[in-house]
Amino acid sequence: MFTLYSLKNGLANVQGFYCDGINCGLRPDPSQGDLAFIRSDRLCDIAATYTTNRFQAAPIRHALRHYGKRFQGNFILANAKNANAMTGEAGIADIETILAALPAEAEAQNPVMSSTGVIGYRLPVDKIVKGLDKLDWHAKNSDATARAIMTTDSFKKELCFEVELENDQSFRIAAIAKGAGMINPAMATMLCFIATDAAVPADEMEELLEEAVSLSFNRISVDGDTSTNDTVYLMANGASGAYDREAFAEALRKITFELAMLILKDGEGANKVVAFEVTGAANDEEAAIAATNLSNSLLVKTALFGEDPNWGRIASTIGASGIACDEEKLSIYYDDLLIYNKDNRELDPEREEKAYKIMKKDSFRIRCDLGMGTGSFTSYGCDLSYEYVKINAEYRT
Amino acid sequence: MFTLYSLKNGLANVQGFYCDGINCGLRPDPSQGDLAFIRSDRLCDIAATYTTNRFQAAPIRHALRHYGKRFQGNFILANAKNANAMTGEAGIADIETILAALPAEAEAQNPVMSSTGVIGYRLPVDKIVKGLDKLDWHAKNSDATARAIMTTDSFKKELCFEVELENDQSFRIAAIAKGAGMINPAMATMLCFIATDAAVPADEMEELLEEAVSLSFNRISVDGDTSTNDTVYLMANGASGAYDREAFAEALRKITFELAMLILKDGEGANKVVAFEVTGAANDEEAAIAATNLSNSLLVKTALFGEDPNWGRIASTIGASGIACDEEKLSIYYDDLLIYNKDNRELDPEREEKAYKIMKKDSFRIRCDLGMGTGSFTSYGCDLSYEYVKINAEYRT
Repeated sequence: MFTLYSLKNGLANVQGFYCDGINCGLRPDPSQGDLAFIRSDRLCDIAATYTTNRFQAAPIRHALRHYGKRFQGNFILANAKNANAMTGEAGIADIETILAALPAEAEAQNPVMSSTGVIGYRLPVDKIVKGLDKLDWHAKNSDATARAIMTTDSFKKELCFEVELENDQSFRIAAIAKGAGMINPAMATMLCFIATDAAVPADEMEELLEEAVSLSFNRISVDGDTSTNDTVYLMANGASGAYDREAFAEALRKITFELAMLILKDGEGANKVVAFEVTGAANDEEAAIAATNLSNSLLVKTALFGEDPNWGRIASTIGASGIACDEEKLSIYYDDLLIYNKDNRELDPEREEKAYKIMKKDSFRIRCDLGMGTGSFTSYGCDLSYEYVKINAEYRT
Repeated sequence: MFTLYSLKNGLANVQGFYCDGINCGLRPDPSQGDLAFIRSDRLCDIAATYTTNRFQAAPIRHALRHYGKRFQGNFILANAKNANAMTGEAGIADIETILAALPAEAEAQNPVMSSTGVIGYRLPVDKIVKGLDKLDWHAKNSDATARAIMTTDSFKKELCFEVELENDQSFRIAAIAKGAGMINPAMATMLCFIATDAAVPADEMEELLEEAVSLSFNRISVDGDTSTNDTVYLMANGASGAYDREAFAEALRKITFELAMLILKDGEGANKVVAFEVTGAANDEEAAIAATNLSNSLLVKTALFGEDPNWGRIASTIGASGIACDEEKLSIYYDDLLIYNKDNRELDPEREEKAYKIMKKDSFRIRCDLGMGTGSFTSYGCDLSYEYVKINAEYRT
């Protein structure tokens, strides 16, 4: 048993962690941050998950080359506006130059970098190195840190929990994330940095992080694309001395899932968050295929935007996904309202009216029971609005 | 050797074929057709390709149940506004009722039906049966026929070729199609009816049709979705007595490819047709995956609409597709303009200006040479505009 509380001020709450965000000239507006760090005053165990995109950006290649997906360190430097992707060896050398310029005061051990922004341009190394002077290495500026990694995000994403264990010990976990467009089931253009003072055993870090990511960031989709830069870092410095695997796993799942929902809610131009719950599939893999196809379908997404109780597109998308299904066995529900089964194919006005009301909500559930077996999977998506097209026609990645 | 001419008036030109289109009350505007037939005055060999969607609509289930993908017959009845999909056995029984009501004058043998429109509603059988009286079984109204199968199409799609062989014999081939939204590499909400008076051997029909479809309708993508109703019928009545396999295969490839390009051009809200040519892949399968991912990518499609020479999204989409690739070996061209390789990563103003000019064209080519092997594939796509969202938010399928 354990108790979990939400705290304000994110990263600043976690023992031994410092963070700051400033403008170093990557963004034209000096009031908008573009460079941030997170560091711990003692060595952390760090676990990472990286994009599945074959063109991994230079920061990921740098970290994998030096440290792999699990290592000890205490320092993340992050920038917005430039992804340092498709920049070749020169992009990796730029990171080495920048990290070598960190002052002694930063006390960086095995530092890594994370970047988000435009693909294909070299980092402005000079601006970033000069910017290091403006960072306060002993600050706990959670807000500025979370804001400095935003790109098309319309609000900052930052959460912190305190977990009290039965033995009266407690630990804290905090995380910041950036998301918005290009979010797909394989965790796209998404950065998330998680800091905890729990005493997580080094050999449990990777498994715990992978489980949490698979249930959160890998289940959301804004547009089905996967970026070159996606990264989640989990840093545990053990400063609280407290740990309970079940409690920590739950807190980690909760913080990553809630951040994933915030990212979806802030999906470019999105107005609604919809859970696509597929049950009764032949197996979990087929359920995952169907659920992911639903959350990625343009026709489903535009129907959500149009608030049209259009189960034809739901059914057609499932049928097109190539998994085992049968129109005589399928049932579709919006929240708890039956919208299709073999005995209720045409929407009568009463059910249609109820369906409209559900679709007008900010958030609802579309459940498809395939009636073929016991496989299930839930994917989370959003609608596709005019605004999405506008943002993506005008923004250069 | 053979010579191919384009003719006007589509289906009306083909010996022995009759066609007509009328309004039977499925569309509210009586000036818009919604019911059409194509028939031959003698028995045809018929080959069909159908959607890969697991929820095949009733017309497809009806045809497969009675005749399979290759059969003899002479009659297609088609309607718009109602897809007769997800309607179960009742939907198939409705087709039986309608086809049984065809008058003797229609001289129908092994008739089939094709439908397009809203999913999940029973056909208005009475309206359609009454509508049969308004059809002229001896008409050659190509235009009305092509118009009666349109849904969100903004123009009718009809082509006809005459092919002169070396022996002075000649045959004709004509086709009508409907397309617009929901078009993906697996041939979605797309109907195409092809009529020829060439004396095509029955045992060559299926292979010829599959080859032509694989090079045309299966290579285009408007939004990556696959409908329940896609059908291509090829009817050959042999009335001309003429045939040459090479000439016929070329004419069939040409008519299906040009119709596919018309469908793309008329993609919902689309302004541009773009060929995504992937070369140098490890093999043809990997090239096909990359090309199809490019033509389906929301981020690529919105960049096309924004006329942004945004090779980062092209590269990122290839990397996300999971195929073998390497940023040091990749080259990207817009038409013949080199836009990325390892020595030209950042766009200088001169190349950027040239790239803008190419992107402003109605049609251009994006070629990605992966430098990994000899595999190649070309897929065709279009941009994604505000108009697409508007059409699909408001249209009920």
